[in-house]
Amino acid sequence: MTTAEIITIGTEIVLGQIVDTNASYIARKLTEDGIRVLFQTSVGDDKGLLKSALKIASDRANLIITTGGLGPTENDITRETISELFDIPLVPDKEAYVHIQKHLVNQHPNVQDGYKKQVMIPEGAVVIHNENGTATGFAIQHGDTDIVCLPGVPREMQSMLNKYLEIYAEKHRSEEGCTLTRDIHTFGISERAVEDQIKAMTLVHDGIVTVNILATAVTREHAVKILDRAEQDIREKLGHAVFGVGDETLESAVAMLLKKCNKTIAIAESCTGGLVSDKLTNIPGISEFFLEGVVAYSNKAKIDILNVPEELIEKYGAVSSQVARAMAECVKKRSSANIGVGITGIAGPTGATKEKPVGLVYIAVVVDDIAEVKECRFRGSRIDIKNFSANTALNMVRLKLIDNTLIL
Amino acid sequence: MTTAEIITIGTEIVLGQIVDTNASYIARKLTEDGIRVLFQTSVGDDKGLLKSALKIASDRANLIITTGGLGPTENDITRETISELFDIPLVPDKEAYVHIQKHLVNQHPNVQDGYKKQVMIPEGAVVIHNENGTATGFAIQHGDTDIVCLPGVPREMQSMLNKYLEIYAEKHRSEEGCTLTRDIHTFGISERAVEDQIKAMTLVHDGIVTVNILATAVTREHAVKILDRAEQDIREKLGHAVFGVGDETLESAVAMLLKKCNKTIAIAESCTGGLVSDKLTNIPGISEFFLEGVVAYSNKAKIDILNVPEELIEKYGAVSSQVARAMAECVKKRSSANIGVGITGIAGPTGATKEKPVGLVYIAVVVDDIAEVKECRFRGSRIDIKNFSANTALNMVRLKLIDNTLIL
Repeated sequence: MTTAEIITIGTEIVLGQIVDTNASYIARKLTEDGIRVLFQTSVGDDKGLLKSALKIASDRANLIITTGGLGPTENDITRETISELFDIPLVPDKEAYVHIQKHLVNQHPNVQDGYKKQVMIPEGAVVIHNENGTATGFAIQHGDTDIVCLPGVPREMQSMLNKYLEIYAEKHRSEEGCTLTRDIHTFGISERAVEDQIKAMTLVHDGIVTVNILATAVTREHAVKILDRAEQDIREKLGHAVFGVGDETLESAVAMLLKKCNKTIAIAESCTGGLVSDKLTNIPGISEFFLEGVVAYSNKAKIDILNVPEELIEKYGAVSSQVARAMAECVKKRSSANIGVGITGIAGPTGATKEKPVGLVYIAVVVDDIAEVKECRFRGSRIDIKNFSANTALNMVRLKLIDNTLIL
Repeated sequence: MTTAEIITIGTEIVLGQIVDTNASYIARKLTEDGIRVLFQTSVGDDKGLLKSALKIASDRANLIITTGGLGPTENDITRETISELFDIPLVPDKEAYVHIQKHLVNQHPNVQDGYKKQVMIPEGAVVIHNENGTATGFAIQHGDTDIVCLPGVPREMQSMLNKYLEIYAEKHRSEEGCTLTRDIHTFGISERAVEDQIKAMTLVHDGIVTVNILATAVTREHAVKILDRAEQDIREKLGHAVFGVGDETLESAVAMLLKKCNKTIAIAESCTGGLVSDKLTNIPGISEFFLEGVVAYSNKAKIDILNVPEELIEKYGAVSSQVARAMAECVKKRSSANIGVGITGIAGPTGATKEKPVGLVYIAVVVDDIAEVKECRFRGSRIDIKNFSANTALNMVRLKLIDNTLIL
């Protein structure tokens, strides 16, 4: 089994100025392709430190993926460091030059000087072209270790990593033994309940419990079959708690079901402050099914925009199952959507009373004339409570839509 | 100067199932306190690999901060690994036991068995108690290196890290030489324009250009003074482009100014889908100033909720400066807020026409009777365009509020 180390390069990473999302992206892709990631290392734009990190990595892994340090500035040192460490001269790549020219056609000519170094790659390296930018990537072999250098811009890196993984798959096709993994996401079932039924590693994030399954087989095809069977088994055991695998999210599952059932949705939010609408509108093409969102933070907004009866708020308070239900019903009626969602609660840290503590949230989903209202008590920070509430609301909508597909 | 390495422990990290936000948090805190972070390493729940990572780290850094692996399960191996690697026996800590008992008072008694190992710490270690959970942290010294082990749950880790940094500051108070850094965030000015005026490292994220300044001095107080002076200098050069330092965000700056000016706000969003409302409502206490948000995704919603004239949409299209302005004016009027914001655009990947490409966004801000409308052309993914648009809108509001404070 190939072992790997990911090295993310950039002073902004080691100083903590940015969260490194490249490492987890690459780790997931490698793991899915049966490569075992042992370490992730981050190091600043410093030749000496990068050399030492590369040396350590090449002693303990068969595959090193680096990101960053391929830009046009003086701080971009990956090319030179690889060249010095492994004693391979840098040579210009003609095709890379054409790529960069095409990319820069609309830029000011003075800007282009810096990009000249971006065509330089170690002699004999496999060139990985960049369709989305000017940083050329490459892969070299040193002893038993393949070293792949990619840029740090996520969009550029991601498509270039896929290109490399195709090369990798081709190279390792004939090898015996393949380990693949898959993430299966669930919601609405506790981690413990999942673990009671399934012997696998689990992970919890904003209420989502993810089961990670792993299969080793002689061939890739066989490993995929084992994973398919295991996934099927988990889906049977956990039922509709399973909402997706891999990159799928609660919002993408809801969007897919809205499309499948041809239903429209409208959302009235108080404590989540627009987060549910924001999540749903991250999905391309949602505009056909998502009609409107109302962030009715003030009571006035609840009364004016949504026509929630003032007496209801006075009698039960803005944070109550009655008001959540009225918000869902009113936004549904207002928009003529098929589904209405209402969320009201106390995200904290202030606003709590003895009867209504921080984390108390009411979520209502109305489909046709049938309403479901959930009383939830979440723990954590203001942002945790917003996230738990938004995910719970999306999951309630998902389950309603599944019921709907079963009736059809 | 103290050099540091951060080791984040967890199979879920190396497999890419979660994005490791602890490493960047710790790196930022250490850097602010004058500690130079050289490497960040992530490693799975594996004693052998963790030992090798700890050994390498203790050879190249004076301070190691680990997170994760202090839980109650068999996979939590940090305590045992430290004990074996440095040959220090684990002993129970009485005070930790009391802490855990208090924390678990409402839990089922059967659950408590696993927590017994969480009171075990290396003999002679400095104990770092956990106010928010059951994982006890500790710090040991090995040769020239301090090794600090904290849990992986961010909220628990963060307050325990602060406790340790107080111990660290006390220990290093008398030492000569202190290096501190500070992040100064700007918006609305290009990276190049910033770099032309200020010689410092910059970083760009969702349109925010951050300047990182650094000061070395004999004492901490002196270093702080140098940073204050440098910050003052940058503020003078870049003016109102500077919106905050450190943890401050565009939304926290807007919230602070709304409070200062005692102004209320209402937001009508189309392509940003609720992101501006979501960002603003992440700030505690915003409910006094943020009245309502409307996510008017469909034309019908723009007409019905906001009373945007139908003829305007027909004549100029939903994505136009006229409609953005009408959205801002209408939501302001609807809610009786002092400030109205309207955003309409094409987030992509679909929905573009020849005249109106993906990334074309109109943002309007209306204060009293004065409207400002900006035509923007953003590049990137759907989510990039949402983020750029939201930040641009928040910044326009911020600048209006600053003008307002100057008039007062």
